[in-house]
Amino acid sequence: MTEIASQIDAVLASVDARLDQSLERLYELLRIKSISTDPTYAAECQRAADWIVAELQALGFDAAARPTPGHPVVVAHGPDRAGPHVLFYAHYDVQPVDPIELWHSDPFDPQIKTDDKGRKIIVARGASDDKGQMLTFIEACRAWQSVTGSLPIKVSFMLEGEEESGGKNLPPFMEANRAELAAADIALVCDTDMWDRETPSITTMLRGLVAEEITITCADKDLHSGMFGNAARNPNQLLAEIIASLRAPDGSVTLPGFYDDVAEISPALKAQWAGLGFDEAEFLGEAGLSVPAGEQSRSVLEMLWARPTCEINGMIGGYTGDGFKTVIPAKASAKISFRLVSGMQPDKIRAAFRKHVEALIPADCSVTFHPHGGSPAITVPDDGVHLRQALSGLSAEWGRPAVITGSGGSIPVAGDFKRILGLDTLLIGFAQLDDQIHSPNEKYDLASYHRGIRSWVRVLAALAA
Amino acid sequence: MTEIASQIDAVLASVDARLDQSLERLYELLRIKSISTDPTYAAECQRAADWIVAELQALGFDAAARPTPGHPVVVAHGPDRAGPHVLFYAHYDVQPVDPIELWHSDPFDPQIKTDDKGRKIIVARGASDDKGQMLTFIEACRAWQSVTGSLPIKVSFMLEGEEESGGKNLPPFMEANRAELAAADIALVCDTDMWDRETPSITTMLRGLVAEEITITCADKDLHSGMFGNAARNPNQLLAEIIASLRAPDGSVTLPGFYDDVAEISPALKAQWAGLGFDEAEFLGEAGLSVPAGEQSRSVLEMLWARPTCEINGMIGGYTGDGFKTVIPAKASAKISFRLVSGMQPDKIRAAFRKHVEALIPADCSVTFHPHGGSPAITVPDDGVHLRQALSGLSAEWGRPAVITGSGGSIPVAGDFKRILGLDTLLIGFAQLDDQIHSPNEKYDLASYHRGIRSWVRVLAALAA
Repeated sequence: MTEIASQIDAVLASVDARLDQSLERLYELLRIKSISTDPTYAAECQRAADWIVAELQALGFDAAARPTPGHPVVVAHGPDRAGPHVLFYAHYDVQPVDPIELWHSDPFDPQIKTDDKGRKIIVARGASDDKGQMLTFIEACRAWQSVTGSLPIKVSFMLEGEEESGGKNLPPFMEANRAELAAADIALVCDTDMWDRETPSITTMLRGLVAEEITITCADKDLHSGMFGNAARNPNQLLAEIIASLRAPDGSVTLPGFYDDVAEISPALKAQWAGLGFDEAEFLGEAGLSVPAGEQSRSVLEMLWARPTCEINGMIGGYTGDGFKTVIPAKASAKISFRLVSGMQPDKIRAAFRKHVEALIPADCSVTFHPHGGSPAITVPDDGVHLRQALSGLSAEWGRPAVITGSGGSIPVAGDFKRILGLDTLLIGFAQLDDQIHSPNEKYDLASYHRGIRSWVRVLAALAA
Repeated sequence: MTEIASQIDAVLASVDARLDQSLERLYELLRIKSISTDPTYAAECQRAADWIVAELQALGFDAAARPTPGHPVVVAHGPDRAGPHVLFYAHYDVQPVDPIELWHSDPFDPQIKTDDKGRKIIVARGASDDKGQMLTFIEACRAWQSVTGSLPIKVSFMLEGEEESGGKNLPPFMEANRAELAAADIALVCDTDMWDRETPSITTMLRGLVAEEITITCADKDLHSGMFGNAARNPNQLLAEIIASLRAPDGSVTLPGFYDDVAEISPALKAQWAGLGFDEAEFLGEAGLSVPAGEQSRSVLEMLWARPTCEINGMIGGYTGDGFKTVIPAKASAKISFRLVSGMQPDKIRAAFRKHVEALIPADCSVTFHPHGGSPAITVPDDGVHLRQALSGLSAEWGRPAVITGSGGSIPVAGDFKRILGLDTLLIGFAQLDDQIHSPNEKYDLASYHRGIRSWVRVLAALAA
């Protein structure tokens, strides 16, 4: 047994003994309202970055909140060690909290509650996505540091504050600091789910994203629907027709060329996924649904992991307050995103979307497009030594084999790690499907937090082997 | 010449001499923020009603603001006189002012400005719809009263405060006070346009209205579009598909039976309308448009006056704030209204709409409907003595024949006058097409106000003949 392996039990015991202090630190971070998309909260984002810097400095890291044109990026480096050098990524920003009236408690006043199955949960905006997940790693570093005086391997951090708002400043930041950041051997990202509450997972396929905001203008002012109705173009109607045109009756996306670069998954992968025992009814049931909405010829797991989608994330036009107003508005707008799979090019999809929309605009109306970021899907090689080491660490903690999965979500930074820094990424996370990230009453299982910390203790050791 | 006819010139001279005071009174009323649809402004609605009561009492009317479950109705009666007894209707409530950022001045700080054609205009919310129009009649009464000590005929008032918010309390109020109100011989309504700036008009066809609010619920919570996108039904997409399904490519409304009760207009009326010299390009150009949006086989004037329509007055779903949020919302909603023409039954159209929508809702989603009022179209007989008298009064003031027109708007009270009180209605107004009612920078031409008052001086005399 190596020296590091012999220390694991003591480090794990320290995690268990000091869980309350670990929770207190998480609460401190959760109380900071770091909503990155809303300029009102810019100072809170800075405060979150500063809080993390102080924590990392206390653990012996050379840490700083580095400015960007948006919110700062926290970069930190630990002492040199033998073995691989890992670059840990997470994000300290959170989603907006609306609709606030659906929260059962203040989203920025974290509380331990008991869910309807008797499980302890930490309820707050960001509890799961991504502050809780981020602290599992930092608290694992703390345990190693406090028990052994050092970490098993060299650890660096890059923690951003714009993941929930397009993240457009991070790639230039990575470009500008390429030499410093590319010194790492592999990236670790903690922003993904477990397969289920007993089975840890490493994600090797992530969908990409193209986000667009469109605004349609018809008349040059709001009109009275009695005086003008029927004769004047209604931008709500026009926008609805455009949105409706994006999906065929069979659930597929209609953009010309949308599926041209989409490959079928291999029979081997299909078999592995079949072996996961995914329960479509249970999955949809978590959301109160029972009828799959996407391509009717595909399984739900395929729809989520291996097929692209088009989603209308927001739309608004006309009078939406109390009561009724018989107006034909001048404008209507929508926020529309496409999730991409491996092979699809964000720029090509964005161009196809814009061309499709423009063709539907009457001669006396107009449309403007505002891009909200784009990233390709990524696929992590599933035969690397670090992946096998990490899987073994996870398996040891959970007492069963960790699985390799896909994800319907997008983590653009994983693509940037490869493209800009040449680094592969291990996507390891402890979130649950029912964490309600991006929704009211977001939570993180207390078990996710506790065993997430323990898991990282073991993964750090496994990577040192 | 009758005594009344001999007094007209003196009364008109008084109107001209005291225009500034008439304007000051209009400004006082325009400063009251009587937005009826927003409960925040309930006290302002009461204040507007009280202001009018005080004005009418000062003119010798027996006036009171009568309570309803909503905003009060002002009822006032003048002394008995020979000749017909008229019941004048207008509304003291106004539309909301959003989008407030498009107003060039405070909507509740009335100002005289000069438009780009050099015309003096009164700019404020309600300047045209309907406070300015209402005061043309009250100021005409004031002029008769101050010059001659009485009015030419017996005048009563019924002035409501919920015309812009569904007006659901007025019909029960009219039912409850039927005997009192039905004592009049004819109703006068001042909520319509002139044909053009030189040609007064009486409107004899008004479209009806059916207003519905629908809310579609899919998942039982907001979802992450990465985790659920493609598999979970998106209510924005579903709502867009429903809205798109309401119109055929030729611009017609698709609801089964929608046109069943719609009659073609007579060749005679078609000929009269053709003689009005309506300029489609100029009409659409007023709104910055050039392509008629409705039924492609119809003229714009037919679309507006003689054909029903379906308009999406508001829609909202998902994240609509700054930035981007990759959410699949739980709900999406829309405010949808139908303008009806003579023969169409509001209840039948509402039922057809609901049935159509319900058929498009997947098994695991739901829809709720909230009605916002409904009224049939009305047609005023165009062969009555009062209509001829009023036309002659208007023609005398403007020096050219007044015309008979239709209107695309809905004035439900005109139907209620007939149904509940047995009264025909004369729809006489001095608004202009470019008044931007319901829109930012609503205005009323100073000429509309001044000559509107003069017109009513003459119409009151003509009705006494």
